[in-house]
Amino acid sequence: MVGSVGNGSMDLREREKAVPLPKEFEREEMVDALTPLRPDTVEEEEKGRTREIVLGRNVHTMCLEVKEPEDDDEVTGDREAYMASVLARYRRSLIDRTKHHLGYPYNLDFDYGALSHLQHFSINNLGDPFIESNYGVHSRQFEVGVLDWFARLWELEKNEYWGYITNCGTEGNLHGILVGREVFPNGVLYASKESHYSVFKAARMYRMECVKVATLVSGEIDCADFKAKLFQNKEKPAIINVNIGTTVKGAVDDLDLVIQTLEENGFKDRFYIHCDGALFGLMMPFVKRAPKVTFKKPIGSVSVSGHKFVGCPMPCGVQITRLEHINALSSNVEYLASRDATIMGSRNGHAPIFLWYTLNRKGYRGFQKEVQKCLRNAHYLKDRLKEAGISVMLNELSSTVVFERPKDEDFVRQWQLACEGNIAHAVVMPNVTIEKLDHFLGELLEKRSHWYQEGKLSPPCIAAEVGKINCLCSLHKK
Amino acid sequence: MVGSVGNGSMDLREREKAVPLPKEFEREEMVDALTPLRPDTVEEEEKGRTREIVLGRNVHTMCLEVKEPEDDDEVTGDREAYMASVLARYRRSLIDRTKHHLGYPYNLDFDYGALSHLQHFSINNLGDPFIESNYGVHSRQFEVGVLDWFARLWELEKNEYWGYITNCGTEGNLHGILVGREVFPNGVLYASKESHYSVFKAARMYRMECVKVATLVSGEIDCADFKAKLFQNKEKPAIINVNIGTTVKGAVDDLDLVIQTLEENGFKDRFYIHCDGALFGLMMPFVKRAPKVTFKKPIGSVSVSGHKFVGCPMPCGVQITRLEHINALSSNVEYLASRDATIMGSRNGHAPIFLWYTLNRKGYRGFQKEVQKCLRNAHYLKDRLKEAGISVMLNELSSTVVFERPKDEDFVRQWQLACEGNIAHAVVMPNVTIEKLDHFLGELLEKRSHWYQEGKLSPPCIAAEVGKINCLCSLHKK
Repeated sequence: MVGSVGNGSMDLREREKAVPLPKEFEREEMVDALTPLRPDTVEEEEKGRTREIVLGRNVHTMCLEVKEPEDDDEVTGDREAYMASVLARYRRSLIDRTKHHLGYPYNLDFDYGALSHLQHFSINNLGDPFIESNYGVHSRQFEVGVLDWFARLWELEKNEYWGYITNCGTEGNLHGILVGREVFPNGVLYASKESHYSVFKAARMYRMECVKVATLVSGEIDCADFKAKLFQNKEKPAIINVNIGTTVKGAVDDLDLVIQTLEENGFKDRFYIHCDGALFGLMMPFVKRAPKVTFKKPIGSVSVSGHKFVGCPMPCGVQITRLEHINALSSNVEYLASRDATIMGSRNGHAPIFLWYTLNRKGYRGFQKEVQKCLRNAHYLKDRLKEAGISVMLNELSSTVVFERPKDEDFVRQWQLACEGNIAHAVVMPNVTIEKLDHFLGELLEKRSHWYQEGKLSPPCIAAEVGKINCLCSLHKK
Repeated sequence: MVGSVGNGSMDLREREKAVPLPKEFEREEMVDALTPLRPDTVEEEEKGRTREIVLGRNVHTMCLEVKEPEDDDEVTGDREAYMASVLARYRRSLIDRTKHHLGYPYNLDFDYGALSHLQHFSINNLGDPFIESNYGVHSRQFEVGVLDWFARLWELEKNEYWGYITNCGTEGNLHGILVGREVFPNGVLYASKESHYSVFKAARMYRMECVKVATLVSGEIDCADFKAKLFQNKEKPAIINVNIGTTVKGAVDDLDLVIQTLEENGFKDRFYIHCDGALFGLMMPFVKRAPKVTFKKPIGSVSVSGHKFVGCPMPCGVQITRLEHINALSSNVEYLASRDATIMGSRNGHAPIFLWYTLNRKGYRGFQKEVQKCLRNAHYLKDRLKEAGISVMLNELSSTVVFERPKDEDFVRQWQLACEGNIAHAVVMPNVTIEKLDHFLGELLEKRSHWYQEGKLSPPCIAAEVGKINCLCSLHKK
């Protein structure tokens, strides 16, 4: 299991039946609240079977069991030694896994050493960032600084926006779509079929009617199909998820064309647009000729991930919406001395400080440089793959390089590529250097000559996924 | 503004109009994507006005502005010096605010120094904890170890439970109630009126019919009223939020009586119970005579917060449910090589390691000792308050001491008390020592003699909130 942290030397075992409490523990008087469960029946791991993914039943998972300390642990130091060794091994594997990483749009290149002392504090931004709570150990002043920066990036005045720092891109989408639904309670949710799965999850959670719209080969929303779908639901307002960089192909939906389609088809003032800018929402402002995401256009909300382009130890995101919409979500909770329009109540107060730190250090100019570097390196990867006769696609505004799925799953896991059907992708982030790409390309080409027996076997046709023009299978190769 | 981190020396200012980009920046070629906004119109802060809480409009908030680095920052070191000074001041205020804290159920006493190196890694447990994703920098092995520990605590076999580590107690409630709704799509949600606000937020998000049930003076659900409410919705299944420690009074709903009420009134096999164990779910197993939360009773899910009794730098929680229920939530997402039944997609991989670390170090026995200490200290606080003639209530199974709301908001903020109407509470957590309580009591008694002019004025009657027996106002004092 190459693709996983901490194998081999760690407690690799099947999820077995519950282990009873330590014997001596049962004699404690609190056992009336904690009776032992069934006896230990550890089964041998069945080796060699294909790993089948069944929700919640993936019994071959790894687990570092929590063990009850021995009475004399404080004297012997055994417990401390055990934990230190587990953590040291884990750290080593984190270093290795961080080095071999291409498939997820996370910038793994950051240094927050100056912030290490924060780990001693329980920092919690309960509720609304703009309203103080009585809990004093918070980081609202950093959070609001970060939000102001993003509101300015997307051109919304400070007294006209509301937002907060979320736990991840999904929370941003859940929030944006919820705001849309509160604005138009009987609205129909439209999203291209290449939208992130959280959009469809939101529809189910919120009991919204949801219509999937077709996409072009690039991965962008197909506005002809959008128009047709709108036509089928003329009487109901439209709530639209617009992708500023799809998950798989990094495709950017044409926001202007989406708005035009809505307005020309009788939806003027009857639509709400949420922009899912997970990765590219922060890159696009720095790309020349990129269509602009701005609140000067009739959009309702934008979300972006913080752990992606910025880089952050834990997932986080930024959600910005129009203040006028937010009252629909409010509910007065005197307990917190705070009205809460966020999805979560308690919120991680560390993430805003990480973001604030990076924004201050790098600034617009720093991001611009990094975006340019990523785009350059993405083109480098694409060109090298093409030269090697591998089908590949790179959307103009993107650093997500889509290519033929490597035949071997171990290779996929080694490089942590994200795959869908016949295609895989690598996302060129600031930590992905030319050297790393060369290393990857070298391994890929070597393996590939084995997979396809030095040209005797044909690689798959992926014209359906990347277009004929980008497909280099035997049929489409010029 | 005593109750807030980082005042005075930091950038205290009104949320003003957007500031334009630095002038020299406009000449960069990427400005076509980033045009400046309106000119600076910083308004003076209007001092002395009552702070009015208006959602998203609390303009007197503090903000640490993100500033674009100067060209020569790397040479002069000015930027680094500025940031270091901000962070040093912030750290100092965190120490102060952590010291003066009584109102929120967070254990602020932890030492994760051994884990400080983890901050260098972007650890993300995408999707399901039991199914590997291709992203290798994760901590699933720690997460599953923690989940196993909790499943064992609540007596559910390893092959019969599903769960994950959440971002906070709210996420646990959102998940538990969503599972309930998927099991009974037309179910009515019942929750006592003293339930956490996230329960009612869930009802709104999920478009569920929601019925508020009355409470006893203790804060427990009133099962007579519950029965009456069930009677009004006989034809629909019931989804019930049971509080294992309410937010304000620390009241524990009588799970057995809730189940009995359901079964005796025609709801057998037509109900789903979610137990919101935010704080007390982890304390109660160690309290003698406490009614037992266990999956041997017909409950569907239990959630507990990780940053509360355990203590953790960031909010987190544990959610455990029956595996059989979870398929209702699943949706296949090949992108992650993972089906996702969590609310969030990307998940903080640091929190599971913090929890694993503390569970291993303290064990059942360690928690038991801490719970006993908390209960002892809570009784100490209650007795001292009562002796001083202050109305006070302490539920038998709780360490949440409810008392007359201090008259002065500065005092409330100084000690970070949570208040509702005429009552305040202090939650006695492991970091709350007798010394801290004495310090608090000393200050309270001194201030109080001023507020009530050494007995000339009467403190408020809070019999409605805490019962006549606990009220020491002039009317109810014996």
